[in-house]
Amino acid sequence: MAFVVDTSKSPYALLTPVSLRDVKISGFLGKYRQRTIDVSIPTQFELLESTGRLDNFRRASGKIKKDFQGFFFNDTDVYKWLEAASYVFPDTKDRNLDKNMKSVINEIKDAQEPDGYLDTYFMFDKKTLRWTNLKDLHELYCAGHLIQAAVAHKRNTGEENLFNIAKKFADNITNTFGSGKKEGTSGHPEIEMALVELYRETRDKKYLDLAKFFLDERGKGLVGGDEYHIDHLPFTKLNEVTGHAVRMLYLLSGATDIYLENGDKAIFETLNRLWNDLVFKKMYITGGVGSRYEGESIGQAYELPNRRAYTETCAAIGNFMWNWRMLLATGDGKFADVMEQTLYNGLLSGISLDGKNYFYVNPLEDRGGHRRQPWYEVACCPPNLARTLGSIQNYIYTTSKDGIWIHLYEENDAKINLSGHEILISQKTKYPWDGKIKIEISAKPPFDFTLFLRIPGWADGKFDVDINGKSVEHSIEKGYLKIKKTWQDDTITIEFPMKVKRMKSNPFVRENTDKVTIMRGPVVYCAEACDNPAFDVWNLIIGNGKIQEKVEDGVVTLKGNGFAKTSNEEILYQEKGKAKYTYREVEFTLIPYHRWANSEPGPMAVWLFDRKG
Amino acid sequence: MAFVVDTSKSPYALLTPVSLRDVKISGFLGKYRQRTIDVSIPTQFELLESTGRLDNFRRASGKIKKDFQGFFFNDTDVYKWLEAASYVFPDTKDRNLDKNMKSVINEIKDAQEPDGYLDTYFMFDKKTLRWTNLKDLHELYCAGHLIQAAVAHKRNTGEENLFNIAKKFADNITNTFGSGKKEGTSGHPEIEMALVELYRETRDKKYLDLAKFFLDERGKGLVGGDEYHIDHLPFTKLNEVTGHAVRMLYLLSGATDIYLENGDKAIFETLNRLWNDLVFKKMYITGGVGSRYEGESIGQAYELPNRRAYTETCAAIGNFMWNWRMLLATGDGKFADVMEQTLYNGLLSGISLDGKNYFYVNPLEDRGGHRRQPWYEVACCPPNLARTLGSIQNYIYTTSKDGIWIHLYEENDAKINLSGHEILISQKTKYPWDGKIKIEISAKPPFDFTLFLRIPGWADGKFDVDINGKSVEHSIEKGYLKIKKTWQDDTITIEFPMKVKRMKSNPFVRENTDKVTIMRGPVVYCAEACDNPAFDVWNLIIGNGKIQEKVEDGVVTLKGNGFAKTSNEEILYQEKGKAKYTYREVEFTLIPYHRWANSEPGPMAVWLFDRKG
Repeated sequence: MAFVVDTSKSPYALLTPVSLRDVKISGFLGKYRQRTIDVSIPTQFELLESTGRLDNFRRASGKIKKDFQGFFFNDTDVYKWLEAASYVFPDTKDRNLDKNMKSVINEIKDAQEPDGYLDTYFMFDKKTLRWTNLKDLHELYCAGHLIQAAVAHKRNTGEENLFNIAKKFADNITNTFGSGKKEGTSGHPEIEMALVELYRETRDKKYLDLAKFFLDERGKGLVGGDEYHIDHLPFTKLNEVTGHAVRMLYLLSGATDIYLENGDKAIFETLNRLWNDLVFKKMYITGGVGSRYEGESIGQAYELPNRRAYTETCAAIGNFMWNWRMLLATGDGKFADVMEQTLYNGLLSGISLDGKNYFYVNPLEDRGGHRRQPWYEVACCPPNLARTLGSIQNYIYTTSKDGIWIHLYEENDAKINLSGHEILISQKTKYPWDGKIKIEISAKPPFDFTLFLRIPGWADGKFDVDINGKSVEHSIEKGYLKIKKTWQDDTITIEFPMKVKRMKSNPFVRENTDKVTIMRGPVVYCAEACDNPAFDVWNLIIGNGKIQEKVEDGVVTLKGNGFAKTSNEEILYQEKGKAKYTYREVEFTLIPYHRWANSEPGPMAVWLFDRKG
Repeated sequence: MAFVVDTSKSPYALLTPVSLRDVKISGFLGKYRQRTIDVSIPTQFELLESTGRLDNFRRASGKIKKDFQGFFFNDTDVYKWLEAASYVFPDTKDRNLDKNMKSVINEIKDAQEPDGYLDTYFMFDKKTLRWTNLKDLHELYCAGHLIQAAVAHKRNTGEENLFNIAKKFADNITNTFGSGKKEGTSGHPEIEMALVELYRETRDKKYLDLAKFFLDERGKGLVGGDEYHIDHLPFTKLNEVTGHAVRMLYLLSGATDIYLENGDKAIFETLNRLWNDLVFKKMYITGGVGSRYEGESIGQAYELPNRRAYTETCAAIGNFMWNWRMLLATGDGKFADVMEQTLYNGLLSGISLDGKNYFYVNPLEDRGGHRRQPWYEVACCPPNLARTLGSIQNYIYTTSKDGIWIHLYEENDAKINLSGHEILISQKTKYPWDGKIKIEISAKPPFDFTLFLRIPGWADGKFDVDINGKSVEHSIEKGYLKIKKTWQDDTITIEFPMKVKRMKSNPFVRENTDKVTIMRGPVVYCAEACDNPAFDVWNLIIGNGKIQEKVEDGVVTLKGNGFAKTSNEEILYQEKGKAKYTYREVEFTLIPYHRWANSEPGPMAVWLFDRKG
């Protein structure tokens, strides 16, 4: 089945995803997916070619003679692109995409060594370096992305050629590493998720064992012994999320995958402990993670600078992936809340509205210099977005033994297999701009199950719901509204109040003292210069006035009256009371944070002054 | 004469320093200098030995066989220590110090090559690397520190052995670099200041020419072409202070030295432009410079994070050195204001009250983890403090053709040569704790000159002054009170109001929204946990109550009543109004920022909440 994460046989999973192929999205997320198909995947393919990433494979197979191009982890851009292409190809049957995928797989195949080894950096003069520097050289990280791409390719296209290449390399790795074999773990986690998924696809336990082996090797000083590489402590001794944000979130994702298979309580307790540390002390309101440029790392508790927020797009994706796995394990809506918060804000901010420019870094405040780029020398984020958005419909539904769960609201038509019964389900909604969702369910013959509807955390428990126009008997558990009945042809209407909210930070987030940010539903808003030409948005005081919603091109923007604060001089420090401020009443416009930097460059701020002073 | 910077013959200097030897300090700064003599210089000498910095010289001369130890710039720690020792030795005549200085100079002498070359890193297998990587390998930076130490040694001890070593190396460098010779400049400025001082000592213009050559070589891409190395633009095209903070401030110091000799208007305009950029947009209230850990660099305008302030001690020293040179050029008190602001706050914070522990990084906010250390692998700051504090009396007085200038207030006795007349001058004061200074002047025979008394910027033009108990006829120009008269035996009393001030930042410093910091005179205060055990200082609201001064061990601490804000929950973000805060009235104690982290570790903050909310 075409799952991104296949928990259908995972003993410690409460939930099983629904095949990608069986959910057709056409709403807000559908547009992002369609742009991924129409723009991101084709333009990224061209960049893989023009930047030498494909030539590295041709060089490895001896077809061309040139130097290795770019960074030692550049193979992963090819693999992530293939993973993205695999998710979308069955929908498009695009001949050009088919040809490109086949040619890429062919290059990969030809570059593979007879013993299965496959990494285009470690060829020729670099052959002797194989497996000698797991800390820095991303060898197992590259292998992980190959495996994930291959599993996606097999599940979505039914073809096994890429899968066999990846499995052969995975076998080489299982022969190399493990108890009584070579010691080590990856300086950049990723292989753990990949090996568990390969286990799920093959049911060959050696892959799961190796994933667990790599997890258990942490904290032994084999890959630096430091926080950056998350090698300072054994995994289950970790009390805080620290170090490189993407490494940490990928490791947490992989560890959750391992837990889903082996039910290890110490792992689960660690995951929950670290989740609390992240979500209550170290996560941006955008769902972004990573407060420091230095080491692309997570900061200390409450260290959340806005202008110098690093919040790498890949970290937002990592946060999304990890919370998905935690959700599959528990059915607890708090994980879906973080997924949603991340998706609509710090993840989608990573891509431009034209689908071909990307942020690596996602600040919450800027003077206008930070702009998206078509590509990066370290280009992890663009294809990571492509594979995430290409498979985004996978995160809407799951099933459990009791029924069907709706985690994300999005216009779609789905066909869900529940205990052998085919249930048709569709959503009509303008979410996230409108909180009303009409859900139609058709079960033939009628079938008894529970429908679990997520009540987003931001709704504060408020909603209206009916079935076929009548009130619903229901209960709520862990953020989900449960409706148990015999389903046949039913229409559920649920509406969440899309209230404009002024949000405050914990006072320990000292950057945000006396500032508010505006959220409406799951969407974080910001003020950007292009919409507010009459004043500098860094001077905007939001005030307590009414904020009006306005729909523009289907997108809800916000308008209100506040004040622009200006001072009489440019001095940096002066005695309180000496600076003469003027407060000019202004009309302001706020736009969704994920849409900023799509117009003329200029100042932007998420956290805005709350009051005069 | 024993000057640090000798502008006595500089055509574009308005002011000339007074010899170190002729000013005896015994007040606040005198204590710091005495601890430097008693503790810092001896303990640092032991560390030079125990960390192999002296062994590197013995290795270079072939006396011992071992690997080079530490970083390629480690020679500079030895040179800076020698510079510090040179400044203090004549006062102490300490036999042990004499022995240590002589032995160090001997090691340096023996390590010098016959052609004058001297850098212990570039020996044996590294010989071929000489002058091959000016960008990264600090070769000219090391040479600069040798020259500065040698000039200080000659000026303060009258001996010429170290000076001849340095001059021989400088001659090697002038033979190597220059028009028609080798191109290049230093990746880390420092050589510019040193060569100008060597010119001042020798009057040999080739050294000044080479300093100017190195300045003019910037912006040609010879040392990286980037902001970090300040090689992205020609010096006189710079509009902003950016890049590595210490590099920038050392370069500005060196460029000012060049201006003092050649009067180049483009250089002077650049210096003033960059000073405005620094002081009005990029300097911490502590005088610290450098907002970013990444690249130890200056951030963008108004980017002044408190917790992640980098503000390297050496950058504070660089800021102090630069402003001294600007003051010598102009006699403008605004430069002395920045010197004072830096000295009493972000510079003195670099050293512990026991004189043997140092900060490399000086944050303005902390949770208690940041502590001073006896030494660092990159140990630039400890000996830099030693040489600065060892010569601190040099910054109190200058002369000009019109008279005597007092820039810093400090208990002292001085003997000043003014146009061949010996003027005795003393200050009695508890500055910076008390704003009253009694100045006694004795001129025999009576002599007509102008006394220039600095009116610190923080005094807002307010002061009381009298001569021999009578009111004074005076004028004020560029921050200096001018008193012209025939001096004989006169007592001037001047008093500046040491008012406790609540200071605010420019609203664009968004970290400091709705926060104040307290200054009293030139001293910035902070709240530290050890003095405020009843609450977390990060929760302190200063409020508008009266703040009382209390003298403890001669130091003014501040006490007042404010509120401790505590919230009902640990959540990170929530709707405005939902968090329930309690405000408990508390008595708070503030201490001078430069004294923090001398007691039990705990949270500290310079910028404190201004009001409830």
